[in-house]
Amino acid sequence: MNINQDTICALSTPSGSGAIGVIRLSGPKAIEIVNKRFKGKDLNLQKTQTLHFGSILKDEEIIDEVLISLFRAPHSYTGEDVIEISCHGSTYIIAQLLALFIEDGARIAEAGEYTMRAFTNGKMDLAQAEAVADLIASESKAAHDIALNQMRGGFSKKIMELREELIHFTAMIELELDFAEEDVEFADRDDLKALVNRILKMIRNLMASFATGNVMKNGIPVAIIGQPNVGKSTLLNALLQEDKAIVSEIAGTTRDSIEDEIKIGGMSFRFIDTAGIRETEDVVENIGIKRTFEMVDKAMIVLYLVDAIEADQFNLKQMIDEIKKRIDGKDKELIILANKVDKGNFKSTEIPESIKNNFPDDIKTIYISALKEERLEDLTDHLKTIAKSKMASGNQVVVSNARHYQALKNADEALVRVQDGLTQNISGDFLAMDIRQAMHYLGEITGSIEIDRDILGHIFSSFCIGK
Amino acid sequence: MNINQDTICALSTPSGSGAIGVIRLSGPKAIEIVNKRFKGKDLNLQKTQTLHFGSILKDEEIIDEVLISLFRAPHSYTGEDVIEISCHGSTYIIAQLLALFIEDGARIAEAGEYTMRAFTNGKMDLAQAEAVADLIASESKAAHDIALNQMRGGFSKKIMELREELIHFTAMIELELDFAEEDVEFADRDDLKALVNRILKMIRNLMASFATGNVMKNGIPVAIIGQPNVGKSTLLNALLQEDKAIVSEIAGTTRDSIEDEIKIGGMSFRFIDTAGIRETEDVVENIGIKRTFEMVDKAMIVLYLVDAIEADQFNLKQMIDEIKKRIDGKDKELIILANKVDKGNFKSTEIPESIKNNFPDDIKTIYISALKEERLEDLTDHLKTIAKSKMASGNQVVVSNARHYQALKNADEALVRVQDGLTQNISGDFLAMDIRQAMHYLGEITGSIEIDRDILGHIFSSFCIGK
Repeated sequence: MNINQDTICALSTPSGSGAIGVIRLSGPKAIEIVNKRFKGKDLNLQKTQTLHFGSILKDEEIIDEVLISLFRAPHSYTGEDVIEISCHGSTYIIAQLLALFIEDGARIAEAGEYTMRAFTNGKMDLAQAEAVADLIASESKAAHDIALNQMRGGFSKKIMELREELIHFTAMIELELDFAEEDVEFADRDDLKALVNRILKMIRNLMASFATGNVMKNGIPVAIIGQPNVGKSTLLNALLQEDKAIVSEIAGTTRDSIEDEIKIGGMSFRFIDTAGIRETEDVVENIGIKRTFEMVDKAMIVLYLVDAIEADQFNLKQMIDEIKKRIDGKDKELIILANKVDKGNFKSTEIPESIKNNFPDDIKTIYISALKEERLEDLTDHLKTIAKSKMASGNQVVVSNARHYQALKNADEALVRVQDGLTQNISGDFLAMDIRQAMHYLGEITGSIEIDRDILGHIFSSFCIGK
Repeated sequence: MNINQDTICALSTPSGSGAIGVIRLSGPKAIEIVNKRFKGKDLNLQKTQTLHFGSILKDEEIIDEVLISLFRAPHSYTGEDVIEISCHGSTYIIAQLLALFIEDGARIAEAGEYTMRAFTNGKMDLAQAEAVADLIASESKAAHDIALNQMRGGFSKKIMELREELIHFTAMIELELDFAEEDVEFADRDDLKALVNRILKMIRNLMASFATGNVMKNGIPVAIIGQPNVGKSTLLNALLQEDKAIVSEIAGTTRDSIEDEIKIGGMSFRFIDTAGIRETEDVVENIGIKRTFEMVDKAMIVLYLVDAIEADQFNLKQMIDEIKKRIDGKDKELIILANKVDKGNFKSTEIPESIKNNFPDDIKTIYISALKEERLEDLTDHLKTIAKSKMASGNQVVVSNARHYQALKNADEALVRVQDGLTQNISGDFLAMDIRQAMHYLGEITGSIEIDRDILGHIFSSFCIGK
């Protein structure tokens, strides 16, 4: 484990003016550096997890009145001595305080350095540390749930279980190696095969969850397709507007939202290629069949918007057949949105059979008016149902990180070599080599093996400064 | 004093994703509301100024692991029970936590409501409370120093002194009124006149400091004037660029800076009408003498940019005479910037006498090359010297708030009436009326008299939410 000799400092709250700002220092001199400038109780004499009010001075001049939270190693986030300073959220004050601490020997923390220290000091494993960044970035219930589960060690526990199974396997093989001259097989080859199969199945289940994990973390990609002027851009705006209104309900929490994304039932839905939709509606130009199919390929949900009253039946049937072919066997959903029901001489809640008969029975069809924003909740309700089916339950372990997926894949490949080796009756020492490799790859996930500084740097560089 | 029955909550750190976010609750139910959702120690049993780690749950599901600072009334910022929750800085988590507390009976705080409560609960007077907003908004040493001094009660103390003088005055007058039938004058009229004069002098000194205070708070307005193509926009950009670089030195502290503002020697300089400068340089159009003079009128420092080598001597002399007339007797500085020294056949550090002779002796002239960014520090050094002369020392009391200035002006007028009354020998009860009015106006500054809810609302509405 690395012992960090230097003390780091950074603003841990978002930059900009606010009521308060929090500056965090971590390292062997954190308490000493702050105490030197602090007018109040002698911080050197204070116990861990205590709060102290006072002033920070520079050359006898007060910079600010602050509230200090003091944590002594190892009872802190990083496992080191930590001081958190809650000051007035003025950019001038924050810059002055940081400059002062730098003058006294601290340095500005790199992105993710607090969490990296928490990892190197054994406060959390690597997968947990990675989840912290995901948790901060989470903007939907789904993304939040996986990140929190992972941060609390749910995923790590699963990986540990896998490694323990492998250790069991290795033990059996190594026992054989110890008695190599005697040419006996302590480990029954059929038992070994069954064990490898079981481990592989667990790994593949985890790998399969990556699709779900990815969707939970990044949102379900949705394509809105259809003829020009059928109302694609109107629909998009109606859906987005409603979402924005909900978000702004809670004052003071604006979100840096990805444009063209809505949240329903705790899941986010990302509308893909919306620039195309908007531009196309503007210039009344045909999106083109090629581009439409590209969108279908990228999407998990395809919203096929048609005119409920004046749909061209021939085109409709052809198009649906084409899309069905393209999504066949894939985890994709096609929904027909029969739009512009407001044009008909009927209530939007009572669609006549004559209209309904125009649409195929085997595909979910929803009748809406994007323009009048009527029956849009039929669509959002259906999207919610789909979201539920895609979402893992709170306690289920899901892989959401590409690095973890790659490590699992590498472990899988090593275990396939073991499987092959068992079939070909190769000697125990070769089997042991591959099994150790599989263990190594799993260890990369939690960081229970030594990990390259460069790789660590890469992992933590995606963090924000101050975490 | 108002007793606030409801509990308020808000995000106190700037919105957006960050390592941590701080949510603050204040009011009689602050502890109870958080404790209901907190898994950790029973917060109801904890002492004031204590730190507690735990989780916040909603329906058995963890929303986040948090650190809680607990303060019991009156030992808190607002003087009420206060909980500060330090959570992961995810917009999703923050929205979830706030929604939970609202569900449990808190409501979102209005702008400045925490500080307003601190005022109504007697934790600070009104002038101090107003200084909190100024402190948060401060972006220069000068603005910071006045705000901090005011927040710590420096200004309020001065106002109290004035009121005490007035109370002394009133006591003398009222003594007379008590013995009105006997027609005696206990208070020597000459003593009274001297006292009123002294108080008026103090009030007028404070009022005079408003110009300084305004400049310290908002920056010194600077005009860059000169013929087209003389390099105004090049100079502006060179000055601004250097400033931006300094600011970004300390990582993680971006400032929402007012464009076209630089900081030198802790003071900010605001370049006025820069849109005009930029636009003019683009289209090579003459700014026009009328607009130039408007800029001179608005500025405190006039930078008159001329071509060092090819200045039109006749125009130069005429222009300088005109500007001198306009700024005569006003607190304004004219500096001639002889630009483009790079064009001459001499070192920029050794300006030949033949060039120097072209410029008047009685006006500060600085030779620069804006293009090559040479000798710009001569300019910034001189600006620093000016800034120092404008700045009040750290302990000097300065009026920086227009509301306070108005109150002082009203008090001044009431005291002038007293002065007139003394000269005209009007009766004591009329004098007492005006003196009470002066006391009332001074009381408005610190809020030691009852202040209209609407006025309070107006004062605190300029705050950010969460403070």
